[in-house]
Amino acid sequence: MIQLSEYSTDPTESIEKEEAEEIRLKDLNKIVELQTRLFASKKKSLLIVLQGVDAAGKDGTVKKLFAGLNPLGCTCQAWKAPTSEELSHDFLWRIHKSVPAKGWTQIFNRSQYEDILVPYVKGSLHKEKLHSRLDAIRFFENFLVEENDTQILKFFLHISKKEQKKRIEERMQDPTKNWKFDPSDLEAHEKFHEYQNAYEFIFNHSKDSLPWEIIPADKKWYRDYLITKAVKKCLEKMDLSYPELDSSLGLPSLSE
Amino acid sequence: MIQLSEYSTDPTESIEKEEAEEIRLKDLNKIVELQTRLFASKKKSLLIVLQGVDAAGKDGTVKKLFAGLNPLGCTCQAWKAPTSEELSHDFLWRIHKSVPAKGWTQIFNRSQYEDILVPYVKGSLHKEKLHSRLDAIRFFENFLVEENDTQILKFFLHISKKEQKKRIEERMQDPTKNWKFDPSDLEAHEKFHEYQNAYEFIFNHSKDSLPWEIIPADKKWYRDYLITKAVKKCLEKMDLSYPELDSSLGLPSLSE
Repeated sequence: MIQLSEYSTDPTESIEKEEAEEIRLKDLNKIVELQTRLFASKKKSLLIVLQGVDAAGKDGTVKKLFAGLNPLGCTCQAWKAPTSEELSHDFLWRIHKSVPAKGWTQIFNRSQYEDILVPYVKGSLHKEKLHSRLDAIRFFENFLVEENDTQILKFFLHISKKEQKKRIEERMQDPTKNWKFDPSDLEAHEKFHEYQNAYEFIFNHSKDSLPWEIIPADKKWYRDYLITKAVKKCLEKMDLSYPELDSSLGLPSLSE
Repeated sequence: MIQLSEYSTDPTESIEKEEAEEIRLKDLNKIVELQTRLFASKKKSLLIVLQGVDAAGKDGTVKKLFAGLNPLGCTCQAWKAPTSEELSHDFLWRIHKSVPAKGWTQIFNRSQYEDILVPYVKGSLHKEKLHSRLDAIRFFENFLVEENDTQILKFFLHISKKEQKKRIEERMQDPTKNWKFDPSDLEAHEKFHEYQNAYEFIFNHSKDSLPWEIIPADKKWYRDYLITKAVKKCLEKMDLSYPELDSSLGLPSLSE
């Protein structure tokens, strides 16, 4: 059973910022190379799911990760409140359309889990219904893994209520951050603990669900260090190789 | 256990063509009305899946059914061999994109089951893999039912090998039908029994799958009579009512 209160949002004693940054840049270089292999071989795909409360650092994480990814083979989808067309379908309809094709890396900034979180906190759906939605997500994710060799990484950016407050205040006070402020941030801050409960509800749904990585995210450099490391490790495990030319072709002579 | 050899492709003794046609036209009128209610209330949706061997009459069925449906609320999707973009995703990716929105009726001419049938007959996928695909389809269909109130009707147009031969020959000989002939028809005819086996494999997969209706389809008028009746019955069961105006509004006075 995962209880978020048992997970520190800032356990950065073990490593210095400078060292973490050095490792992160090396890992990012490795990611650049591996993602090119993934794209060249067109056999597997990678889906990175980022979740976290408001101001947890999802946008920042995307920005930092993208620096290491070739846009020719990598896209990011930020999920907002569903449109009326999306609402006229099941909640996985819009998600399924956006899963990565073979060779591609897709980052979900928010995801299918919003359709659990929001009704959980609002109390707008029965628990039973939320359980059946989580069953559907579990089946859907495992189906992508089995049917299309999609590797799925799910990160929860774990920040403290105090850190969230600080960031929301920055959004209100810093003219360069004003544009990120939304009055709903204040409500989300008030409901901080309800959201934590909703996440625990998700994490503890079923042992057959694909696992989450809970990322201590009060310090941005530490968050980026951990996520970069996890993405690199995942790509290494995918055993990616460049496709080989058919050797029977020989070396064709090209005109000079 | 369903064995297709036990199902007649032409059990038309019980009804005369003229009487069947009369009933069909009445049913079609009823469908017109019910489909308008479905569209107006925007709460449920209807997915009609048509499968059958080559020349079983799928196109003809669509044409006959559409006569009773309002195109403002009804679409038909004919599935061909997957494109390279579709092949770079799981086999349900293109299907999920095309499921009906609330209020809509969608007809699938061929469907997700082609991704079982073709590899089954070609022997290109292990039985185990085909079973897991059928599990995925079962979960997917039940999910649409539960999550989006989609009613799913699955019809198998059951014709004899003799009738298929006759129809393919017509395609070859009748200048107005030539355009429907494809050399692959001949191969499909040779593999008639392999396809029957593949369908039995699908029908007998799991008792939790949504049921199929096996439609004797050697006689076109009988096929249309049965399908129209089944669609009407299904729409009647959906308990569709027009949305009501909020009575507190009173009758607004409109300027003359």
